[in-house]
Amino acid sequence: MKIVILGGDGFCGWATSLYLSTRGHDIIIVDNLSRRDIDNELGVSSLTPISFPQERIAAWKEVSNNEIKFHNIDVAREYDSLLALLKKYEPDAVVHFAEQRAAPYSMRTPKAKRYTVDNNTNATHNLLCAIVESKLDIHLVHLGTMGVYGYGKFENTPIPEGYLKVQVPQPDGPALEREIMYPADPGSVYHMTKTLDALLFYFYNKNDKLRVTDLHQGIVWGTTTDETGRDERLINRFDYDGDYGTVLNRFLMQAAIGFPLTVHGQGGQKRAFIHIRDSARCIELALQNPPQKGDRVQIFNQMTETHRVGELAEMVSKATGVPIQKLENPRNEMERNELNVMNENFLRIGLKPIKLDEGLAAEVTDIARKYAYRVDRSKILATSRWRS
Amino acid sequence: MKIVILGGDGFCGWATSLYLSTRGHDIIIVDNLSRRDIDNELGVSSLTPISFPQERIAAWKEVSNNEIKFHNIDVAREYDSLLALLKKYEPDAVVHFAEQRAAPYSMRTPKAKRYTVDNNTNATHNLLCAIVESKLDIHLVHLGTMGVYGYGKFENTPIPEGYLKVQVPQPDGPALEREIMYPADPGSVYHMTKTLDALLFYFYNKNDKLRVTDLHQGIVWGTTTDETGRDERLINRFDYDGDYGTVLNRFLMQAAIGFPLTVHGQGGQKRAFIHIRDSARCIELALQNPPQKGDRVQIFNQMTETHRVGELAEMVSKATGVPIQKLENPRNEMERNELNVMNENFLRIGLKPIKLDEGLAAEVTDIARKYAYRVDRSKILATSRWRS
Repeated sequence: MKIVILGGDGFCGWATSLYLSTRGHDIIIVDNLSRRDIDNELGVSSLTPISFPQERIAAWKEVSNNEIKFHNIDVAREYDSLLALLKKYEPDAVVHFAEQRAAPYSMRTPKAKRYTVDNNTNATHNLLCAIVESKLDIHLVHLGTMGVYGYGKFENTPIPEGYLKVQVPQPDGPALEREIMYPADPGSVYHMTKTLDALLFYFYNKNDKLRVTDLHQGIVWGTTTDETGRDERLINRFDYDGDYGTVLNRFLMQAAIGFPLTVHGQGGQKRAFIHIRDSARCIELALQNPPQKGDRVQIFNQMTETHRVGELAEMVSKATGVPIQKLENPRNEMERNELNVMNENFLRIGLKPIKLDEGLAAEVTDIARKYAYRVDRSKILATSRWRS
Repeated sequence: MKIVILGGDGFCGWATSLYLSTRGHDIIIVDNLSRRDIDNELGVSSLTPISFPQERIAAWKEVSNNEIKFHNIDVAREYDSLLALLKKYEPDAVVHFAEQRAAPYSMRTPKAKRYTVDNNTNATHNLLCAIVESKLDIHLVHLGTMGVYGYGKFENTPIPEGYLKVQVPQPDGPALEREIMYPADPGSVYHMTKTLDALLFYFYNKNDKLRVTDLHQGIVWGTTTDETGRDERLINRFDYDGDYGTVLNRFLMQAAIGFPLTVHGQGGQKRAFIHIRDSARCIELALQNPPQKGDRVQIFNQMTETHRVGELAEMVSKATGVPIQKLENPRNEMERNELNVMNENFLRIGLKPIKLDEGLAAEVTDIARKYAYRVDRSKILATSRWRS
């Protein structure tokens, strides 16, 4: 398959690009390196020393003999370049990771809120527009988030894969049975942009019959894949700062450097998780199982297990002896929630979930320990606040 | 009340500004004149000879002795100016008309699609961000559209005002009774942007407790209000071209100049309507009835009657003798639909609907006849297509 990967230099994008390249796909990475620019803005680097895209690609060629192409295009701003790229390569699919992806960053300042909405909405809409204008039958695979569903909106009703069965009372007859798009309940500006994306997909799917798969992903943990581990120059990024660091990796990193594990609030928040290797595998499965022309938007929940944040902290604390510190929750969220998520779609098409175990957790801790000398401890705590 | 009107130079915005000014409110118009720029782009002018904003405001001062302020700010681009304006005037309310509002224009070209999404989404989001950053308790009144609901999504279920009652089955107990945001079903890129707006309102209302009223307006008809009729220099715009002309006004204009009435498809589309005078009155009612801090987004259906497009054409044709021409429908929509809309909220707070009658229709025809010499007949037919 010929696959364009928007945002292919990022944490998930890079791992996915190499995973798909190894499996014989022809990969074209598009990235404007905005994530690296945000590192500069925040004054914090990936814990791991990532190479420049050109070096990464050269190293990959050396190691695997596979060629990956790289184009520096701002998908939200450079529509003509994006369109020309689609026309040039005529890809079978585009995987769309090209969005600002941190909830805390999206709540940091008015500027960051506005950047997140502007960038994410225009990136997705430009892509949809360009696919229509190209007249190519491209399968669009988008990385969404479990956060679009909110937490506990419908009590014990399991969270379905995108579509909720409801009954709508009619004035003059029996209630209608309908599947509707799950009512969105975003918890940050970032999550909100993914709910906007869903409506963009809905419309372009309806009006232009675009084939779209939207993947509502859980919190990704782990750092290394078989491919990124093959050479130091292929190393994947590892975010540990208060804006971009995500919860399980943060605990493992904190444990590695002896920094008390930071739990926001009481830790009762239950969240969905997936390992970085499964994330890449899921993208491949989604690419191999596209919707047919005329099908509605295909939505899969890309997660393999759920955990309560406080329980993860306790697990890591017990294994390592590093204590937990409970901090005021900067987010505006429920102290405690249940979370029952359906993920039958990926299981049905072949996902064999990697579950949290000590070996995999140790891999993260090892990486964190190896690069502990690069940690700026002043950047670990979350500083973005949901409300002033 | 001190009221900032974003998009106050447009068709609804100008009529509303004068209506509220007459009733003693302090009005600040913000407009970047994008609608006049699009006239230039399309090579077509308002049927009526509208004055420049500075002339309009000077004439209004002369006629009414009321002062309206005017600021040329691009709300989607000039965030700092918008924020400074809110801080300077400390308005009680902002009425937000500052969006590209034509469905056909929004489907015209990839550039127009992208402009519509970029402009409308950033305008709304900048406003929300600026209200939060200003720390002012401003009531935001937004002009939405009945088009967010789609047509016939739930068969005979009357279209409620924003929130739909549904039952959500639970695995372990009786179904939950819930009111959810009505599942969006936009019919064009323009309508889609209003469904994005709804999610922006939802999030900022939830996270920041902003007070928001979203008005889902029907198709506006009529041209003159008591205020715009007071002086030739106050005349309101009248769009008659294939992109911006709306259906009932288009028939009346066509009748006035003896141009066959253009019905797209068979005319079975049923739509909601409201007269321009009622539109302005509804804005005042919404301003007088704000939600309380902590209330959810308040949604009103701003319409007074429904008509089938073909039946309106027949009515105008019978009254004037001008024949109907049926054209291929450029839109991607149902040939025929039912439409049962609830509008109890406005009736409850005092709206006395103006209904379609021959006197009011004659007013439009008179205006159209008076300025018939300004018509460019080559611009009357719709040229934008929903699908290539």
